[in-house]
Amino acid sequence: MNTVTIQSLKDYVDQEVQLNGWVYHLRSVGKIWFLILRDGTGLVQCVVVNNEVSPDVFQLEHQLTQESSVTVTGIPRLEPRAVGGVELGVRDITIHHIAEEYPITPKEHGTAFLMDHRHLWIRSKLQHAILKVRHQVIKASRDFFDQNGFTLVDSPIFTANAVEGTTNLFKVDYFDQNAYLTQSGQLYQEAAAMAFGKTYCFGPTFRAEKSKTRRHLTEFWMIEPEMAYCDLEENMDWAERYVEYVVQWCLEHCQQELQTLERDTTKLEKVQRPFPRITYHEAADILRRKGADFEVGSDFGGTDETLISEEFDRPVMVHRWPADIKAFYMKRDPQNSELALGVDMLAPEGYGEIIGGGQREEDFDILIKRIRDHDLPVKPFQWYLDLRKYGSVPHSGFGLGIERTVAWICGTKHIRETIPFPRTIYRIEP
Amino acid sequence: MNTVTIQSLKDYVDQEVQLNGWVYHLRSVGKIWFLILRDGTGLVQCVVVNNEVSPDVFQLEHQLTQESSVTVTGIPRLEPRAVGGVELGVRDITIHHIAEEYPITPKEHGTAFLMDHRHLWIRSKLQHAILKVRHQVIKASRDFFDQNGFTLVDSPIFTANAVEGTTNLFKVDYFDQNAYLTQSGQLYQEAAAMAFGKTYCFGPTFRAEKSKTRRHLTEFWMIEPEMAYCDLEENMDWAERYVEYVVQWCLEHCQQELQTLERDTTKLEKVQRPFPRITYHEAADILRRKGADFEVGSDFGGTDETLISEEFDRPVMVHRWPADIKAFYMKRDPQNSELALGVDMLAPEGYGEIIGGGQREEDFDILIKRIRDHDLPVKPFQWYLDLRKYGSVPHSGFGLGIERTVAWICGTKHIRETIPFPRTIYRIEP
Repeated sequence: MNTVTIQSLKDYVDQEVQLNGWVYHLRSVGKIWFLILRDGTGLVQCVVVNNEVSPDVFQLEHQLTQESSVTVTGIPRLEPRAVGGVELGVRDITIHHIAEEYPITPKEHGTAFLMDHRHLWIRSKLQHAILKVRHQVIKASRDFFDQNGFTLVDSPIFTANAVEGTTNLFKVDYFDQNAYLTQSGQLYQEAAAMAFGKTYCFGPTFRAEKSKTRRHLTEFWMIEPEMAYCDLEENMDWAERYVEYVVQWCLEHCQQELQTLERDTTKLEKVQRPFPRITYHEAADILRRKGADFEVGSDFGGTDETLISEEFDRPVMVHRWPADIKAFYMKRDPQNSELALGVDMLAPEGYGEIIGGGQREEDFDILIKRIRDHDLPVKPFQWYLDLRKYGSVPHSGFGLGIERTVAWICGTKHIRETIPFPRTIYRIEP
Repeated sequence: MNTVTIQSLKDYVDQEVQLNGWVYHLRSVGKIWFLILRDGTGLVQCVVVNNEVSPDVFQLEHQLTQESSVTVTGIPRLEPRAVGGVELGVRDITIHHIAEEYPITPKEHGTAFLMDHRHLWIRSKLQHAILKVRHQVIKASRDFFDQNGFTLVDSPIFTANAVEGTTNLFKVDYFDQNAYLTQSGQLYQEAAAMAFGKTYCFGPTFRAEKSKTRRHLTEFWMIEPEMAYCDLEENMDWAERYVEYVVQWCLEHCQQELQTLERDTTKLEKVQRPFPRITYHEAADILRRKGADFEVGSDFGGTDETLISEEFDRPVMVHRWPADIKAFYMKRDPQNSELALGVDMLAPEGYGEIIGGGQREEDFDILIKRIRDHDLPVKPFQWYLDLRKYGSVPHSGFGLGIERTVAWICGTKHIRETIPFPRTIYRIEP
């Protein structure tokens, strides 16, 4: 007899199979009872009829509790009214473990309670669906870059220098010295792009935002491509191709999850190239027109981002930023040296910035001047400056935050639910 | 005109194309000179003939230095004697940047010097090949688990408790408390497997091995699958299927790199299922027979692993270990409670342990007793114990170290060369 998953049940109609799973729900109507089983790949209704199973099995109705683990033997049959179009006619049930009273019930629980039980909460329908989407977002991301000739070059997590101050950095006791946890793999990707042409890194990054609320993650995942011989325009081409690919992939492969999450997928279907590209100053004009409390020259706040993104039905790329609010390594616009060749991509529907990137300064003399202008020490950047000594080329890249992207695609405002075990200022357990 | 990569040059024979890259080598024979160009996807010989280019371009021979960045225009033609089977008849060369004297030369350099220049060293042929293999090992790993119904569930990096002592843990200043960097994502995968059935995590893990030499990495990458309703035997089935898949994938997709590395691929071709499975005591018999200085009951040292693996032409799985030297969560053998249902996989040719794993204890009472027997505090394990309260099932998993696997497949003994920017007790730069 085959042991199969709920997802594949349709392939075994009218053949006796075994399912391993957990009791999701029980419902009785006298001589019949229904067991909704979950196995991680889906849910299925198992029908237990009095005279089709042994008396011992039939009376399990009174023994089985939510989340008890069981092996169910039965025959799948097509049933259009059932979830997934299949139900299971039960022949036998074997109990592995009777669960104690399960703490998560259909009633409302507070966030703290649910987060304390995150190890169990991920079994729940909505959390399960969000993390399935996360899986596909990551898969699509890797596939996109792999298929387009990028080489994965992992950036290191430990870095020696807190070059831009320690405010948002986590410090680690590293034997007899200090180390810091990376906030971005970009500088290393620049070295990698000079060796491999097109590269990316994908891993956790860390930000110790002391001033922020419990809603901010201290540990989050970022994918950062970098391309040699690539200017800002081509960088934006890559960014929109990539985001389009991820969204379309999820529409295709997460239908059921997006339905569970009640996501309005018509909004996602519109995410197709070309994405609008506007300058920072055009974005500022939008804000002025809409009467936002915004000072030209400053960075956008969350509300500003929402006001801008509302104007468009797909992600919008804002480029050419005031150089003063951007990092030292960003190349200036040859047409206007007050502007940096940076680009942010704002997700639609108010989900905020999902991508930040730009073209990097490739000239040694200018770069060293910028480092000094920013009051940064030169020594820790010697290796980075080397990239401008030995065959420097125009190059660009960007970083996409996985959690924000998952939040947007799932249509959830709670970033803490887009990562399996969120870490915030107040939480590092479970 | 098409801008193409060296890798795709064969598709453009007799069509004028542009290549963006860096000067790898120059060689002159009077009225002809040869430029070996690298672009991250390969190397190609570009032939510059006196009367086929302008005098300005022809005299670049005297200007171009190693690693200078150039765009070369020309016509690819088949040339069986050339690397890749193609060479480029040059029409034009545009210089982006003339490199200063490149520090890495064909002469021998010491390891410290090369590691100080790791940001440049990754451009070198062998390092480049190793990191390309790493890329494919990681891609094959993800593909394998994705294709087999596993869900990626990232385990957290920050953990609250140093449950097994702080000796090998990195401590982080986490706002007003301490946090530690993860050594393994396993316990979280156990929670995930109960929600998703089959899961894996893939990310950096950290080990502060103070006593070890500069050869040990403090930061390395691990992939850790976990399966609900899975016993030790099935766990070994998954491990051998997975390792076979990765090795065969690399043989197919890294031919050129393995050739560059002068890897004896006939050894890798033998890596096919079934892999031998021997018990710990059978392994100990091998050591005794070979006269090793080994005490039964202890763990294998590096030399022991080599002596065992020499007996086989493919990876060997050693299972059923003395429970005393294995972790508290490992299930005991029902046939012999002195033994734990653990398994290590040793790579052939003396490359040592690449996998460690086993079946987990699923019984609440036994598990809590083990925690106490190991003098561990119960409180930090409450969430982990919950997994045995709410639908506990037999489950198993393992972890594979990416760097060791890359070292084995590449045939390199230097683990520090299998990661782009290695971190060791003495090195966190560049």
